[in-house]
Amino acid sequence: MRVSVAQLNPTIGDLKGNTAKVLAAIEKGRADQADIILCPELTIAGYLPQDLLFHDAFINAEEECLKEIVKASQEICVVVGLVRHNTGKGKDLFNSAAMISDGQILGYYNKRLLPNYDVFNERRYFEPGKEKKIWEIKGKRVAVIICEDIWRHSGYVDTRYREDPVVDLADDEVDILLNLSASPYQFDKPDVRVEVCANAAKTLKCPVFLCCQVGANDDLVFDGYSVCVDEHGNLREMGKGFAEDQFTVDLSAPTCNVPFTYDPLYDLYRALVLGVHDYFTKQGFTKALVGLSGGIDSALVACIAAEALGGENVLGVSMPSRYSSEGSVVDAEQLAKNLGMGFKKISIEKPFGEFLSLLEPIFEGKPVDVTEENLQARTRGIILMAISNKLGHIVLSTGNKSELGLGYCTLYGDMCGGLGVISDVLKTQVYDLSRWINRDKEVIPWSTIEKPPSAELRPDQIDLDSLPDYGLIDKMIKGYLEERLPTEVAASRYGIPLDVMHDLVTRLYRAEYKRRQAAPGIRVSKKAFSIGRSYPIVQGWR
Amino acid sequence: MRVSVAQLNPTIGDLKGNTAKVLAAIEKGRADQADIILCPELTIAGYLPQDLLFHDAFINAEEECLKEIVKASQEICVVVGLVRHNTGKGKDLFNSAAMISDGQILGYYNKRLLPNYDVFNERRYFEPGKEKKIWEIKGKRVAVIICEDIWRHSGYVDTRYREDPVVDLADDEVDILLNLSASPYQFDKPDVRVEVCANAAKTLKCPVFLCCQVGANDDLVFDGYSVCVDEHGNLREMGKGFAEDQFTVDLSAPTCNVPFTYDPLYDLYRALVLGVHDYFTKQGFTKALVGLSGGIDSALVACIAAEALGGENVLGVSMPSRYSSEGSVVDAEQLAKNLGMGFKKISIEKPFGEFLSLLEPIFEGKPVDVTEENLQARTRGIILMAISNKLGHIVLSTGNKSELGLGYCTLYGDMCGGLGVISDVLKTQVYDLSRWINRDKEVIPWSTIEKPPSAELRPDQIDLDSLPDYGLIDKMIKGYLEERLPTEVAASRYGIPLDVMHDLVTRLYRAEYKRRQAAPGIRVSKKAFSIGRSYPIVQGWR
Repeated sequence: MRVSVAQLNPTIGDLKGNTAKVLAAIEKGRADQADIILCPELTIAGYLPQDLLFHDAFINAEEECLKEIVKASQEICVVVGLVRHNTGKGKDLFNSAAMISDGQILGYYNKRLLPNYDVFNERRYFEPGKEKKIWEIKGKRVAVIICEDIWRHSGYVDTRYREDPVVDLADDEVDILLNLSASPYQFDKPDVRVEVCANAAKTLKCPVFLCCQVGANDDLVFDGYSVCVDEHGNLREMGKGFAEDQFTVDLSAPTCNVPFTYDPLYDLYRALVLGVHDYFTKQGFTKALVGLSGGIDSALVACIAAEALGGENVLGVSMPSRYSSEGSVVDAEQLAKNLGMGFKKISIEKPFGEFLSLLEPIFEGKPVDVTEENLQARTRGIILMAISNKLGHIVLSTGNKSELGLGYCTLYGDMCGGLGVISDVLKTQVYDLSRWINRDKEVIPWSTIEKPPSAELRPDQIDLDSLPDYGLIDKMIKGYLEERLPTEVAASRYGIPLDVMHDLVTRLYRAEYKRRQAAPGIRVSKKAFSIGRSYPIVQGWR
Repeated sequence: MRVSVAQLNPTIGDLKGNTAKVLAAIEKGRADQADIILCPELTIAGYLPQDLLFHDAFINAEEECLKEIVKASQEICVVVGLVRHNTGKGKDLFNSAAMISDGQILGYYNKRLLPNYDVFNERRYFEPGKEKKIWEIKGKRVAVIICEDIWRHSGYVDTRYREDPVVDLADDEVDILLNLSASPYQFDKPDVRVEVCANAAKTLKCPVFLCCQVGANDDLVFDGYSVCVDEHGNLREMGKGFAEDQFTVDLSAPTCNVPFTYDPLYDLYRALVLGVHDYFTKQGFTKALVGLSGGIDSALVACIAAEALGGENVLGVSMPSRYSSEGSVVDAEQLAKNLGMGFKKISIEKPFGEFLSLLEPIFEGKPVDVTEENLQARTRGIILMAISNKLGHIVLSTGNKSELGLGYCTLYGDMCGGLGVISDVLKTQVYDLSRWINRDKEVIPWSTIEKPPSAELRPDQIDLDSLPDYGLIDKMIKGYLEERLPTEVAASRYGIPLDVMHDLVTRLYRAEYKRRQAAPGIRVSKKAFSIGRSYPIVQGWR
């Protein structure tokens, strides 16, 4: 028995394009003499079409695509993910897998455990399936489950589900377990999937295949890394990270334990690059625009954009004011040169000055405050958006997670942009990534990395004037936000003085209104601001 | 038996403030010689605290508040809504009601039907309850259910639930049915609640009380209108619309059928006013800022803001450019005068001119296009935000639903603001409301209402240059978006030419990226853009 795992990168709702990928995977599998082709969760629709699923035309069009796939399945077995109507009680739809063999649909499996936490909202659309499904394929008993169904068995889920679909198969003498997945990337966690498959393999005493979606859709990045483990839980084969891939395993061949190693920083970088790449190419955009302040955040975003789109497709704009240091402009220009990017320099002094004069009668008698700083950031935002409108470049937003967490950013100013590239990357990780990018040669000018962070919005300003040390901020975000520890526990575990901690948590909630209007951001952590987190703006809890 | 319905306006997460409201309601009920005080769903927390619910400290603090309420319940019965821990299988929490009597908690009812559609996402937080609950209070059998539990019985829900908690009580000889609710306002639908209660009353042959939350929290407005129907389904008593209220019904007194009439436009206006009022007062803000273009949208927003906050607390700013008509500025000033608002006039010509010169080298050889229009809108946005930052006024966003639907608005320009006041109001409704406001005297200058709509961003521009007639746009939004009809069906039912329909639907999806960064907006329709609707930006389905 030979199983081919087709780790595909679908575009949400591009049903025909996604179906073409399945047809190509069938041909590739056929060439590899595969008996079964396993595709990812919601293969035809992509994960997740959200409210597009409420359109009957969408579900019907998916059914037409399924017919194409059935037609292409002569003398081979194909397992594809799709959405189907539920005519019974509960929600209108099922998150299903079709078992197709030799031009016929043998049946469907409906996902039983529907995640409804963090970024997942499957209960909005789907009714949980009630039955396990095992098919006999070439004399082997093949069971099919979908994503979350396998995770509960290892406890890596956020709900105490009543059922364990893996345990439910324990007495069924299953020969092969197939899982269709769409499991999103998370920093420093890809090895968990191997463990999850190994646990299921040991319980069922059979090999397990986990076919993952790869690619990015809006905020979510899927890293691939599909898995095959043998009946002892040893890793036999793994799909590539951050790229489409297809591999075929001959289950009658002798097994060997493949080691899985990965580089967390390199993967974080690849996740961000893929996030930018797919946001652009799946919409038909080719060119990006980045405001280059000479600081480390915009430098990192420029590196990621240049890697994703080619340096020649990224335009950097330096927009100095009276408060910008000469070094910042020089650094920005050097970075653009290092990356092969276009570069423009536009001083904001004149429009900034005009705004100040216009507003003088209204501002009279009031002290200079954050207003004048925001005015500079917004003047820059306007310039970037105007260039974007005229030239068709998409603006990339350069704010990091630490800033966004505390609201240390200007709405309609530096928050402008179609995509928040590093909005889920902590400031300390921004440093780590930048040093990693410079590991062999200076790509980001070292002076950008080594100078104290500053918004350069007033004379001699540095971030430390307004904020605690970024090390403390990032610990708060890790402990309080990502690990959801109580305030006091997070403070003591991470060594944050309690008064600093309370101040940080207050700032976190106060900035909710800004984040509500932020660009979508590439999610790379356990708990991002972009999606998967939902707090009221108007509220009395602190 | 006397039941007192306490229609309260909680602030999300202000547990102490909300508890104080319950304590006051108990005293009021006591003065009315009530036997039972019925409060709304999630009385102590407010509906809905969203991810605040994941903090144990929140749930524990709520428990402390419950103790206060228990202490205050001497010789009276109180039914309050609260969140409780679930230690069994499934999600961590229950959406519960506590039955409290004479200083003791008699028990809890856990909501059985959890809505997870449109604006509701209760499956993210709660495990559904499994049991009905009936308590004997002063010799009467009193059943308690929560919100959605009663709606399924009349079919007004978006899920084919397996259970019907009303029918489940049919053989239990219930004497009184109490329902704790938090049912949001929707244009032209308040009378549905009476029908829903009447259906339950007829099934159970007992009087039904529905206690609604009132007030606004972020995007959602709750209109109140709590209901008491007798055992025949006749309306006995109803709470006020859009205000806190408490009424006590003596069930031994003879019943009479109270008529329920309401004015849909007046209620729509009140919903918007309450939305603005609570957004401000619950955050401690007092002053608003509105950019007055001389057009009908900003005029309507100014009227709503003046009603909610007092005209003296609203500042209107007219920001003419070379393309603004003299009439627009005159109309804006007259409107401000009529409403008793402050008024400033600031020409955008100078900064606009500076931006054009700055960008000339980059724009060279490119034709004038929407870029220059957006530049004007964004220059205005900057000015409003600067005044907001300096004076502490909150900017109100003035875009209507028809514009937002098609993306006929400028991100970071006219979309600036803390709250989208009319972002769920169709352009045709904007006209209806404006004429309604002018029913007795000219508040909005008639010339504002009667001139053809124009953004005044280029010479002699009117909206019809870029858009189909608003009548058609609004029909598309009603048919395709709100009623979710297939494209062709919506076109034929509403008399929209099919090519226009396809163009409108394409524009609708293309504008998703703009709406993702829109301010929260007051929801008044069946399907708003603000919350309750979730579509991917990057997608291949059209």
